[in-house]
Amino acid sequence: MNNSRPRARDIGIDIGIFVPGRWNAITDVGDVKVGHVTLIKGEGKLVPGQGPVRTGVTVILPHDGNLFQEKVPAASYVFNGFGKSIGLHQVNELGNLETPIALTNTLCAPLVADALIEWSIRNNPEIGINTGTVNPVVGEVNDGMLNDIQGRHVRKEHVFEAITRAESGPVEEGSVGAGTGSSCMGWKGGIGTSSRVLPYNLGGYTVGVLVQTNFGGILTICGAPVGRELGRYSFKCDSRYDAPEIKDSESPDGSVMVIVACDAPLDHRQLQRLAKRAGLGLARTGFFGSNGSGDFFIAFSTIERILHNGPLTLQTEVVSNDSMSALFLAVVEATEEAVINSILKATTVIGRDERTCDAIDIHQLLQVMKKYNALNRNETILP
Amino acid sequence: MNNSRPRARDIGIDIGIFVPGRWNAITDVGDVKVGHVTLIKGEGKLVPGQGPVRTGVTVILPHDGNLFQEKVPAASYVFNGFGKSIGLHQVNELGNLETPIALTNTLCAPLVADALIEWSIRNNPEIGINTGTVNPVVGEVNDGMLNDIQGRHVRKEHVFEAITRAESGPVEEGSVGAGTGSSCMGWKGGIGTSSRVLPYNLGGYTVGVLVQTNFGGILTICGAPVGRELGRYSFKCDSRYDAPEIKDSESPDGSVMVIVACDAPLDHRQLQRLAKRAGLGLARTGFFGSNGSGDFFIAFSTIERILHNGPLTLQTEVVSNDSMSALFLAVVEATEEAVINSILKATTVIGRDERTCDAIDIHQLLQVMKKYNALNRNETILP
Amino acid sequence: MNNSRPRARDIGIDIGIFVPGRWNAITDVGDVKVGHVTLIKGEGKLVPGQGPVRTGVTVILPHDGNLFQEKVPAASYVFNGFGKSIGLHQVNELGNLETPIALTNTLCAPLVADALIEWSIRNNPEIGINTGTVNPVVGEVNDGMLNDIQGRHVRKEHVFEAITRAESGPVEEGSVGAGTGSSCMGWKGGIGTSSRVLPYNLGGYTVGVLVQTNFGGILTICGAPVGRELGRYSFKCDSRYDAPEIKDSESPDGSVMVIVACDAPLDHRQLQRLAKRAGLGLARTGFFGSNGSGDFFIAFSTIERILHNGPLTLQTEVVSNDSMSALFLAVVEATEEAVINSILKATTVIGRDERTCDAIDIHQLLQVMKKYNALNRNETILP
Amino acid sequence: MNNSRPRARDIGIDIGIFVPGRWNAITDVGDVKVGHVTLIKGEGKLVPGQGPVRTGVTVILPHDGNLFQEKVPAASYVFNGFGKSIGLHQVNELGNLETPIALTNTLCAPLVADALIEWSIRNNPEIGINTGTVNPVVGEVNDGMLNDIQGRHVRKEHVFEAITRAESGPVEEGSVGAGTGSSCMGWKGGIGTSSRVLPYNLGGYTVGVLVQTNFGGILTICGAPVGRELGRYSFKCDSRYDAPEIKDSESPDGSVMVIVACDAPLDHRQLQRLAKRAGLGLARTGFFGSNGSGDFFIAFSTIERILHNGPLTLQTEVVSNDSMSALFLAVVEATEEAVINSILKATTVIGRDERTCDAIDIHQLLQVMKKYNALNRNETILP
Repeated sequence: MNNSRPRARDIGIDIGIFVPGRWNAITDVGDVKVGHVTLIKGEGKLVPGQGPVRTGVTVILPHDGNLFQEKVPAASYVFNGFGKSIGLHQVNELGNLETPIALTNTLCAPLVADALIEWSIRNNPEIGINTGTVNPVVGEVNDGMLNDIQGRHVRKEHVFEAITRAESGPVEEGSVGAGTGSSCMGWKGGIGTSSRVLPYNLGGYTVGVLVQTNFGGILTICGAPVGRELGRYSFKCDSRYDAPEIKDSESPDGSVMVIVACDAPLDHRQLQRLAKRAGLGLARTGFFGSNGSGDFFIAFSTIERILHNGPLTLQTEVVSNDSMSALFLAVVEATEEAVINSILKATTVIGRDERTCDAIDIHQLLQVMKKYNALNRNETILP
Repeated sequence: MNNSRPRARDIGIDIGIFVPGRWNAITDVGDVKVGHVTLIKGEGKLVPGQGPVRTGVTVILPHDGNLFQEKVPAASYVFNGFGKSIGLHQVNELGNLETPIALTNTLCAPLVADALIEWSIRNNPEIGINTGTVNPVVGEVNDGMLNDIQGRHVRKEHVFEAITRAESGPVEEGSVGAGTGSSCMGWKGGIGTSSRVLPYNLGGYTVGVLVQTNFGGILTICGAPVGRELGRYSFKCDSRYDAPEIKDSESPDGSVMVIVACDAPLDHRQLQRLAKRAGLGLARTGFFGSNGSGDFFIAFSTIERILHNGPLTLQTEVVSNDSMSALFLAVVEATEEAVINSILKATTVIGRDERTCDAIDIHQLLQVMKKYNALNRNETILP
Repeated sequence: MNNSRPRARDIGIDIGIFVPGRWNAITDVGDVKVGHVTLIKGEGKLVPGQGPVRTGVTVILPHDGNLFQEKVPAASYVFNGFGKSIGLHQVNELGNLETPIALTNTLCAPLVADALIEWSIRNNPEIGINTGTVNPVVGEVNDGMLNDIQGRHVRKEHVFEAITRAESGPVEEGSVGAGTGSSCMGWKGGIGTSSRVLPYNLGGYTVGVLVQTNFGGILTICGAPVGRELGRYSFKCDSRYDAPEIKDSESPDGSVMVIVACDAPLDHRQLQRLAKRAGLGLARTGFFGSNGSGDFFIAFSTIERILHNGPLTLQTEVVSNDSMSALFLAVVEATEEAVINSILKATTVIGRDERTCDAIDIHQLLQVMKKYNALNRNETILP
Repeated sequence: MNNSRPRARDIGIDIGIFVPGRWNAITDVGDVKVGHVTLIKGEGKLVPGQGPVRTGVTVILPHDGNLFQEKVPAASYVFNGFGKSIGLHQVNELGNLETPIALTNTLCAPLVADALIEWSIRNNPEIGINTGTVNPVVGEVNDGMLNDIQGRHVRKEHVFEAITRAESGPVEEGSVGAGTGSSCMGWKGGIGTSSRVLPYNLGGYTVGVLVQTNFGGILTICGAPVGRELGRYSFKCDSRYDAPEIKDSESPDGSVMVIVACDAPLDHRQLQRLAKRAGLGLARTGFFGSNGSGDFFIAFSTIERILHNGPLTLQTEVVSNDSMSALFLAVVEATEEAVINSILKATTVIGRDERTCDAIDIHQLLQVMKKYNALNRNETILP
């Protein structure tokens, strides 16, 4: 399924002190599933509403069951609200998630939310009739640099298909699904994922992260100044005021979505603290939260299910505050690695008006990494 | 245009110490316009996806010009996030509003957001091509008690039509537009509006409020315990745990949207403070913020326009902190009166499954008001 | 202990549909204790730093045990942050409370926090040595209209004494403790309290509220326009811009602190939702959130104790979202009644520069209440 | 004044693409002044309340004038609220700062706030008498590993002295003032500062940052894994659950305060966005927001002064949203460099119970930096 480009660890890029899970993916957590639909159609000059199409949808399912009937604890955190994500207010008010999380392009966010409503109704025909409504959760980035974003090409059937295709195990990364048309710090970005398993004496929990990368900054990998060495100083400042010395060849309106899954028993407050740490992982890759970057982070726990119309009180379990630090570091590490994976796995995409967003050259990258002695750091502490 | 039912002041219900503006409506502020499309179709048994239809859309335009090119300062405040409003994160991050605000039913929110995107693109074909994307702002309440909400009957053309119809002057209230199928504290609710003009020595500013009422509580008008006297103790507790003594015949999933317009020069922080006060006005009518009530407040200022792709810095003006109190009280008063207007003007609606949500009986209401000496209080202080 | 002035229910002022607890006080919840130290010294002309002194301190203890070792779940919500409360960030980050809550005057807040630190160290000598530090929680209002606030007359020993005196059972209200020098909507305010017990089928929980009232607005009791009838239109607008028609004879910088205790099992998110509803209760009494009013609400649950340095995970129980509404209404009702009690029980205080803040005249008040048929409403629904 | 240890740039540690200001310090912004009082007294075994004393106070003055009469626009952002900072609610509600910002140790925060009150009253005798009260702003970290923190040794006179000593020009860094007893990622930390000047076409503004470092993490400098290479894996997890493989010899309760000054015209919303970016700069040094780290960021603008009791409206100027990105990156860079300076300049401190927190060895550090080719990157783009 996956292309032949390497992930970070395949080429000696070792991030952090904790070890990844089996797939080094968000799917290492509980029964989490991920599905993509990639839409590529047409080429050449942009005809608004028609193409070329370089976009898609990615869905993350916290579990296999009926999500509306068996919600999961969840929280969101908005680092920079210049974005059009949908459904996060209710996630924070009620502390739960009751649909898959769908990622897509900015202008398709409403249509994808509508598709999640329809999917939820199909599985729960009582919605809005004998019980309350449903809260669809959608994240997005602007892929308009490559994609006919006005065309809003992601339709209901694509969302349904992505849900149907969702599976456990390895996750396809790079220029796929909601990452088909996105770019990151001057190169092609897209979907990336990573995970961490804590040592048993720190709880033994698994944290998984999935990112949709489309942000500006100066790429840094394991501390190596890759962006500077390879001449990409993109920092997404508004172009009218760019210093001529600052190359910002891409400058799309950016955004980054970070989805954090965890199998520790965590309540809303704790999940929001987890989500907040995602920004620290991004920062280590070059992210600086530019004005035009909508940066939304969502965290959920897979260990508990909250029944729709459940009883008056629920018995539950929560990790103590004092035990949170290792989970926080795991989020930071997995987010950092997921971003790097999103760039490494991304393949070159030629989009509207023959615009090319090129994959990072692995050979050049390795040269830089070697120059900075940034490979094979083997920092991992075995659990 | 308006039906013959009275507004609060028509029957001696005088709320607050400040005087209303010319129309006692949100349209008293600058060039604000309001437009409705009301959808009523079919009757009898609910056939999900087909009808009966008792819903609609209401749009509020901060000004006549191109909103994307000339944004207005804005802020939002979420009192209770059990709701599906769209676009509020960006309003708070960037401090502005760049589309009309559209109100509709819960499950139509995404489709209405998509319509606002399309409308914005029509007027600004460069969106997503040569410039950034657009942030549609949509509020909603659940009208599923009367309406086939699964059918998502509000479509693009209805949104466009509501924008086309939007006008200054008197605002149609009650069971119209986004208020067609909503209910409030046991009676038919809907759209209501009111305004206040400050005395000159307090700035002379105008504050206007428009509400979409669909919440629970025990109706109180000018302090008269109307709900108790007329036997409606709806407090929207989950029905499984209702005390038998507590009549809650309606118990829809509720929500209330409050839109505040002001012609004072206010920045984002100040507009958010304004928005926050809307909840105090609601409280005076019986609102208590039940779990299932999504309560979202949006405030904007009409005095300044923020150019898309404007210059490096803007000259602006802001009211001092010390001068805010009168504006706050104006918001509280106008919100309280707008809620009462939404109920008074609402006509009985018979919806799905022959369910009836009845208009409040004016005669009975006046009896209660007299019993509590609550009419003609003439509290107004002339400016 | 208490003065002979009536509480609301003693004179037929019946607020809300739920019944109060045994003492109709915050002490109805679990083992909550309240203690006051009232400081009254000197009279006549203000000599800054010396007097006259009209201030004090009030402490609320969630339980009898060692609060640092056995913390309680807690949350805070800031309605208007023009205030100097201390310790609320940590309450929200960690979701707990580890000292008594102390209320005092604005300029004494730091010294009172320091006293709570010292008291905590006495009881837990390991603080800052073998374990972390302690987070004192202090609320305040500005009593400078009557009190030599520059003198910061509340000292350590007063805080210790208030804690020592803290007890269950009836709570002294009015011009005592932290309410000694405060005023409310033109009359003397101070400390007030009330409680509600939910019907068994709504959980049977008890909610208690204690307020420290010092805010502006136009007093309304059970809907009767008391402030208007008795000629007090204080709305705490900055006096430079006051309309001459608006009487605002007092206009202190105001604030209101609301402490909510509950014996339901609630996590931080839920306690914050509870705290947020306090503002709705205030609104029903005339509160409108003026610029100069620092309005801080704190809620805690008494049912669970969180051990300092406890185990990796805790077993716990939480009320479902759907079951929260009755608790919300209970907070609104108890807050409204606590405010009214704070005014009814308050005795006239003559302070600095012979300034008099007079107790509300019960006879006049009853006249107004009768005029509006606002007595003996008997709205209560028996559980 | 400063010790002979190098700052980052002195030894070839070049951070970021923007150039520093004249002093590479927060004092490069407007008339900002910084003053320290360092308290070192006693040695040997801890006698709680007596010593040894290893603490102090650092003050930052936004300008030379009367801060209460001429406030500056300001905002705060709490990354992790496990801390006892004082005064931040009012900063965010009113959008301004009216006292110096004082930094100190955790348990002294209240006493230092009380000192700021007293200092403000001395300069404005009308406070609390003829006008409102004053809002002192204090940040803190826990220096209890080295210091007799129970003794609360920072007293009024130290705060007054620090204000008196405050000056423009170079800022003393390292183990001074509020940084006397703090530690950072296993080494001695303390006070650090840095600044950035934007190119003219990006506005030409200056951003200055001052940090008080006391947090955990694995030290990274310009991407070089210094902590790993020198064997310090401190990540401030609760020690009971530490993996034996993870060395965490220090593990104090940490915190980090970041103060951002800027001469761009920015309103509260924009200053809060600036403050929020400080966390990204921290992340690049190894910070991961551990549970026990209270991380509070404050930003203010020096370009405008807001008069106490000013007129109804103020004329003002604000930078457009689109022009914020360069300021954001400047905050990230200056924060990162300020942290590194705080560690480089810190001298070894031996404190209570003969505990030693050692300065980083510059020779060893340079070895690591060379191994990773992390020196003399010369990334700066000249303006």
